[in-house]
Amino acid sequence: MIYLDNAATTKVDITAFENSKKYLTEEYFNPSAKYHGGICALNAIKQAKESIAKIFGGNFEVIFTSCGTESDNTAIFSYSKRGNVVTTLGEHSAVFAPLDNLKKSGYDSRFAKINDDGSVNVEHLLSLIDSNTTLVSIVHVNNETGAINDINYISKKCKEKNPRLVFHSDGVQAFGKIQTKLAQSVDLYSISAHKIGGIKGVGALIKNKNLKTLKPFIVGGGQENGLRSGTENVFGIKMLEFVSLDKAVNFERNFNHVSNLKKEFLSRLDKSLFKVISSDTASPYVISISAVGLKGEVLQHMLEKNDVIVGTGSACSSKNPFSRVLKEAGYDNKTLDGVIRISFSFDTDLESVITAVSKINENALNLKKAMYNL
Amino acid sequence: MIYLDNAATTKVDITAFENSKKYLTEEYFNPSAKYHGGICALNAIKQAKESIAKIFGGNFEVIFTSCGTESDNTAIFSYSKRGNVVTTLGEHSAVFAPLDNLKKSGYDSRFAKINDDGSVNVEHLLSLIDSNTTLVSIVHVNNETGAINDINYISKKCKEKNPRLVFHSDGVQAFGKIQTKLAQSVDLYSISAHKIGGIKGVGALIKNKNLKTLKPFIVGGGQENGLRSGTENVFGIKMLEFVSLDKAVNFERNFNHVSNLKKEFLSRLDKSLFKVISSDTASPYVISISAVGLKGEVLQHMLEKNDVIVGTGSACSSKNPFSRVLKEAGYDNKTLDGVIRISFSFDTDLESVITAVSKINENALNLKKAMYNL
Repeated sequence: MIYLDNAATTKVDITAFENSKKYLTEEYFNPSAKYHGGICALNAIKQAKESIAKIFGGNFEVIFTSCGTESDNTAIFSYSKRGNVVTTLGEHSAVFAPLDNLKKSGYDSRFAKINDDGSVNVEHLLSLIDSNTTLVSIVHVNNETGAINDINYISKKCKEKNPRLVFHSDGVQAFGKIQTKLAQSVDLYSISAHKIGGIKGVGALIKNKNLKTLKPFIVGGGQENGLRSGTENVFGIKMLEFVSLDKAVNFERNFNHVSNLKKEFLSRLDKSLFKVISSDTASPYVISISAVGLKGEVLQHMLEKNDVIVGTGSACSSKNPFSRVLKEAGYDNKTLDGVIRISFSFDTDLESVITAVSKINENALNLKKAMYNL
Repeated sequence: MIYLDNAATTKVDITAFENSKKYLTEEYFNPSAKYHGGICALNAIKQAKESIAKIFGGNFEVIFTSCGTESDNTAIFSYSKRGNVVTTLGEHSAVFAPLDNLKKSGYDSRFAKINDDGSVNVEHLLSLIDSNTTLVSIVHVNNETGAINDINYISKKCKEKNPRLVFHSDGVQAFGKIQTKLAQSVDLYSISAHKIGGIKGVGALIKNKNLKTLKPFIVGGGQENGLRSGTENVFGIKMLEFVSLDKAVNFERNFNHVSNLKKEFLSRLDKSLFKVISSDTASPYVISISAVGLKGEVLQHMLEKNDVIVGTGSACSSKNPFSRVLKEAGYDNKTLDGVIRISFSFDTDLESVITAVSKINENALNLKKAMYNL
């Protein structure tokens, strides 16, 4: 099987898993306990915080959560009690849905337009910010197209308009894959473990140490310095630490490798059958293409029969017929209907990609012939 | 090492772990994906829901969450926008802290008194309910004393006073350990995986199918029928299923075994040194005792040097000097200061308990001699 839906989720990293297993079977103590085992568990978490914080540069700290969605919700609900929140039409549902719900209940959520590659229209974004804006939330890498928003630059521009606003970015598709050194103008940043070989059910909210106004979302025993209650998932946290460090250490090698996969994929893709939606400057880990006039979902199932697994837009919004984000990016229904998403992981090999693209071309041609009785 | 702090957390069940591992390494697909692997993952979750729901009786369904605290918060924040919420002074922080915070910000949270064993004073509880009460939340088994609140009876009584209120119970220390067949008057019930051999970072909110007003707490891609967004932790969910079924199947054997451990422990405990706080009718899995006049925390550390691990009240509230709950139960500072908590698991053996209680007696006597220069 050639698995090319790594933006939806990845297989766990076996080395990280083997190194973390002892936190289930031996060092399983509650990190709040005052005896040696508990203290060791708490220290293991502190170590993970330090290791991960370093990846983002100088002045950041780590709050562990249960997923990227919880991280995003924590940022949003902490700052949406008053004023207005500015975001984009290109956000993942974890940011879009809560702000859309808030808007429907009368709150002033504001959505910036996006460009045809899925990136935010920065001019429109900035025009939405005013002195009452409490939060700006911009996805770092679009999960459907791979478009990169330059959040370090954008956050500075936002704060020039209103220095009091808090800047958050959903970095779930960026972390471990593209450069994530954060500027001081970034206050909060969401990451998820299962997109880079960690387990599902673990994420983190990266917090600028200067930010003092974040409120806890899950409230109880006061874990995570009072910012996220609930017994810590030590095993999952250690796995996140190990995969994060591995991705940091091997960053350039992985990036060059996956960039080459993207180049080979696109050069071999039959352009008479497919429109490429992702731009050249996008994250190489995600490629969105459309077999315009064909059904992406049917193509996905045909490919599955050929042992090639691809996505169709965001797995998280699989209940909607068309991609909300790509619709906002301006594509017509024929294009939207034909979208498939190819997403690589660190261990995807070139041979698999070459096989996959040839299957993609072949099946799209067969589908076209069948649909149009050619 | 003799580990008697199982109410804080348990070692993972190795059989359940071995049976669930494939969801990390082979069947790791995103349950929202539309291809075979994704559909299988979603079916694995559905199967887990059905298996676990059955344990609670006829008319319940399961919403998976990241922990007991999140389950509790979901219930509380869904029903605390208006009216009043009635709870007890014996709650775990996951219920107490959010309602205490709400009270401090002006909301009408009401706290029923508790008896000296930690159970709720039902008469006082019922007196707090009125026509504006939206939610009643009562812990099933007190995490510090093991006191059992008869939630099936109490929920009926509450609804006689106000049929529109929603009844929630934190069942984290009850599930898998005491009988948890729920009456139809119970609407919501929180459980946690890591108290019964599952992994940390997985819980569930059990919901009466008749309840239609629950609002999602974490909002995004619409997983869990729109009630809990975020990619599902399939591995952790399957582990929770396997340990839940095992505890259900072996319920009587385990209960009799642990009841016997409690009986032996208490019969061997030196009553000239210890006051027993837990009642005879409490869950046998948790025993609270106090070495009145001595320091429980010092005793805990002395025992640790003898390879006996015990708790001191709730690990989740380890930042407070005294147990909030036991203080409310009416104990004086000398008693509160001497509290240690012994909590058993399914695989705790009699020999370990006999060794532990003799070490507990011996060390308490040594501590007393040292403190009072005897």
